[in-house]
Amino acid sequence: MLPIKQRLYEVIFEADTRIGKFFDLALLIVILLSILFVMLESVPSIENKYHDFLKIAEWIITIIFSLEYIIRIWIVRHPRKYIFSFYGVIDLLAVLPSYLALFFAGTQGLMVIRALRLLRIFRILKLNRYLKESAVIIRALRESRYKISVFLFGVLTLVIIIGTVMYLVEGAEHGFTSIPRGIYWAVVTLTTVGYGDISPVTSLGQFLASMVMIIGYAIIAVPTGIVTAELTKHSTKETSTQVCPECLSEGHNHDAKYCSECGAKLN
Amino acid sequence: MLPIKQRLYEVIFEADTRIGKFFDLALLIVILLSILFVMLESVPSIENKYHDFLKIAEWIITIIFSLEYIIRIWIVRHPRKYIFSFYGVIDLLAVLPSYLALFFAGTQGLMVIRALRLLRIFRILKLNRYLKESAVIIRALRESRYKISVFLFGVLTLVIIIGTVMYLVEGAEHGFTSIPRGIYWAVVTLTTVGYGDISPVTSLGQFLASMVMIIGYAIIAVPTGIVTAELTKHSTKETSTQVCPECLSEGHNHDAKYCSECGAKLN
Amino acid sequence: MLPIKQRLYEVIFEADTRIGKFFDLALLIVILLSILFVMLESVPSIENKYHDFLKIAEWIITIIFSLEYIIRIWIVRHPRKYIFSFYGVIDLLAVLPSYLALFFAGTQGLMVIRALRLLRIFRILKLNRYLKESAVIIRALRESRYKISVFLFGVLTLVIIIGTVMYLVEGAEHGFTSIPRGIYWAVVTLTTVGYGDISPVTSLGQFLASMVMIIGYAIIAVPTGIVTAELTKHSTKETSTQVCPECLSEGHNHDAKYCSECGAKLN
Amino acid sequence: MLPIKQRLYEVIFEADTRIGKFFDLALLIVILLSILFVMLESVPSIENKYHDFLKIAEWIITIIFSLEYIIRIWIVRHPRKYIFSFYGVIDLLAVLPSYLALFFAGTQGLMVIRALRLLRIFRILKLNRYLKESAVIIRALRESRYKISVFLFGVLTLVIIIGTVMYLVEGAEHGFTSIPRGIYWAVVTLTTVGYGDISPVTSLGQFLASMVMIIGYAIIAVPTGIVTAELTKHSTKETSTQVCPECLSEGHNHDAKYCSECGAKLN
Repeated sequence: MLPIKQRLYEVIFEADTRIGKFFDLALLIVILLSILFVMLESVPSIENKYHDFLKIAEWIITIIFSLEYIIRIWIVRHPRKYIFSFYGVIDLLAVLPSYLALFFAGTQGLMVIRALRLLRIFRILKLNRYLKESAVIIRALRESRYKISVFLFGVLTLVIIIGTVMYLVEGAEHGFTSIPRGIYWAVVTLTTVGYGDISPVTSLGQFLASMVMIIGYAIIAVPTGIVTAELTKHSTKETSTQVCPECLSEGHNHDAKYCSECGAKLN
Repeated sequence: MLPIKQRLYEVIFEADTRIGKFFDLALLIVILLSILFVMLESVPSIENKYHDFLKIAEWIITIIFSLEYIIRIWIVRHPRKYIFSFYGVIDLLAVLPSYLALFFAGTQGLMVIRALRLLRIFRILKLNRYLKESAVIIRALRESRYKISVFLFGVLTLVIIIGTVMYLVEGAEHGFTSIPRGIYWAVVTLTTVGYGDISPVTSLGQFLASMVMIIGYAIIAVPTGIVTAELTKHSTKETSTQVCPECLSEGHNHDAKYCSECGAKLN
Repeated sequence: MLPIKQRLYEVIFEADTRIGKFFDLALLIVILLSILFVMLESVPSIENKYHDFLKIAEWIITIIFSLEYIIRIWIVRHPRKYIFSFYGVIDLLAVLPSYLALFFAGTQGLMVIRALRLLRIFRILKLNRYLKESAVIIRALRESRYKISVFLFGVLTLVIIIGTVMYLVEGAEHGFTSIPRGIYWAVVTLTTVGYGDISPVTSLGQFLASMVMIIGYAIIAVPTGIVTAELTKHSTKETSTQVCPECLSEGHNHDAKYCSECGAKLN
Repeated sequence: MLPIKQRLYEVIFEADTRIGKFFDLALLIVILLSILFVMLESVPSIENKYHDFLKIAEWIITIIFSLEYIIRIWIVRHPRKYIFSFYGVIDLLAVLPSYLALFFAGTQGLMVIRALRLLRIFRILKLNRYLKESAVIIRALRESRYKISVFLFGVLTLVIIIGTVMYLVEGAEHGFTSIPRGIYWAVVTLTTVGYGDISPVTSLGQFLASMVMIIGYAIIAVPTGIVTAELTKHSTKETSTQVCPECLSEGHNHDAKYCSECGAKLN
């Protein structure tokens, strides 16, 4: 491996060294700027006034991202693995829309995919305790996935039935123009969002809607209960940091005197 | 029992064999398609364009469901028991509306009852851990039923009083045309749905509404608390039932191989 | 005490005997009917059609309630104590509006106070486990009262500041006509009710509103957390039904071997 | 230190003595009145009617606050420390707007900063158990700060992506005039506020919105779960710190007099 390649690898892929942290931070700022510019471009008044500035800024950022992508492929040990990795695909998607816009109109909007690059922030945070915390949240969500699937499926069935009943009760003249629209209303109501773009007008419709909202009360309690129960389990289990001297297993209870994996004494 | 009856019984009523699973899956897809078609039929633009296709599809599905229903009655050991069972009634209700529509207009909408057939998915899921999870949710909801009843009754009283007070304060000119409508508003507000189709206009009304919303804050916390407390109780109970053969201590983790109290091997 | 007085006392004030239960149930039905009639009277279309029926029904119910009130005073041992008790005041308030309406117009609406009589249902439920459950909820709410007070005070301060800032930012032309109205908007937003009768229009206002909603996210979690923590505490404490043979104290932990009050052995 | 300075110090800065408590209470009432007057001044109808009264009241309160501020600086041991402390800055900001309004128009609104003086109530409450409770809430929020940061960052990324997608799907003609406005809609929807000032109109938009709301379901469960888990951890820790002198077991109830493990007397 060339010394310069080795050096670049440390800068771009590692985040423990000072220059690696600096690179990650600089990259994050460029990503944030790029998202900000895409946003501002969509505001007609700003676009009219700063059109040239925004166009130039966009191309500078596209070139930076392109260079970064090429360098990453060049220095990484297994280019194919990087290209098809989660971050590799996002990095490519972040530059593609700008080039596509040269040939096709209306692909500018795709640039929003750059927002996904924000997820890189978690790499930067890897070094401190943020990662541990996000791991707790993700683990709680993952371990509740079966419960949440069952719950979501139940909600889906409920929403189809409620939506159709309201379509039959209220009818097209009150905004419930089709069953899918009735289901949309049912979701808006059950989740307590309640836009009010469609709302029951007849007495029977309002009575049924009240029932649905009261049911929604109980229903919104379920996912909260599931996630809370998981988070409570983990937080109360908050394990000791001891590592078994024999089998190197971790995650022992605070009051454990012997390793629960191999039976060795914990000190 | 005829061999063909025996064979069909395994296919239709059992879900452990490969062909049984396949039948359940195929049935689920037909149910989903049937619901999709009922939905699409309610959308005027689609109905106008694909009227013939949707009509034919509907009749094919009705025939499939009818055949399935007849075969189920034929092969089951106790037909009467099946017919009056929960799924038996739903299976009948799923085919009735199509035949009724031949004689009576406007009964098409009843076809939504087919959505209830979606609940069959739980039979297919019976084989994996989804059922266990849904059992936990259902048990938590069932064990909280007294608390939730008390809570719902309290909410009902509250909603009647709030709705009437707002009817008196705001009056018909601001949308509160009757006490039931006031109660509808109170439910919409307390559950934090907040359509905005009826909202207070007078200063006193807005002040009272603010009070109601703050109360709603505390109130929405109650069902969440009830369900969470139940779910937490069950999830913390989830230790293994193993007892250490040496020191007889309990509450070991499911994956523990050695007692964490005395180091003895757990079997 | 006259035998008839004694008999009436058992019927009206006690709920353990069969006739006592029957009286409570009949009274509950009359209360529900009376509330239903007050509601229906407020609906213009029904009032026009069934005016006479509703008037007569109202007077019959008023006479029943008046008789009941007089009998209660007559048979109770300490009339003064009953008159000024919680239920005594409600019982009086339930009949007053009808008589007042003879002399003053517009006092009809006060009849809604009868809804408070619904709380009598808790007396009927006293006999089964509903009371125990409502006691758990009330205890959880009462024990969280300090935490909830602190929380409500914090929310009050926050809502005043947010409401004023939005009043300054959006101004009267966008619906924020005064600071109290701004505070009303802040309450509607923080509690996630979101009517949409007043909503920010300027970019700065919408940015600030987004911040407020994100803050509201964290804030709505607090009362839920408080109530859940209380309910969890009580439900995990769920004590054994053992009574100490020495000091008759109850509420021992399930794993207690000795009475925690007097040190006697529990069997 | 002069005796009068010493005396004033006790009155103004200490809250244990009777006169100190009285001063704090009086100050609180003046603060509440001042906020009330600022509010009322913003209501056009009241301002027109009571303009003179409100102006005079404002100046009396400004003079009281100014005097209090000067006395505080005079009597405190380290004036510089007080001036740059949290409460010192708020006390200054509470009087500045009135003086500024003499020279510049439109600075009246800044007076809302006085609402921050309400936080002084926590000093008055310091003496009773409110502080302990607010400490529990603040500790729970502080200990969840990493989890909440990770969560808020995740929500931010999600909101940017959802907002842009909806901007592309719905477009300017349905209210989604720019990406920032789309993000505003995403926040309004995910937090279940749901004003309805912007809501999807196209079928695809409504389908995506339904997805977002269902996701919002799971998402709103996360902060609740985090805060609840923290609060539960603290509340379940609330056993007495007593250790049994005989068997050294811990975790006894606060009101236990004898060890529930071995029956020994607890002191």
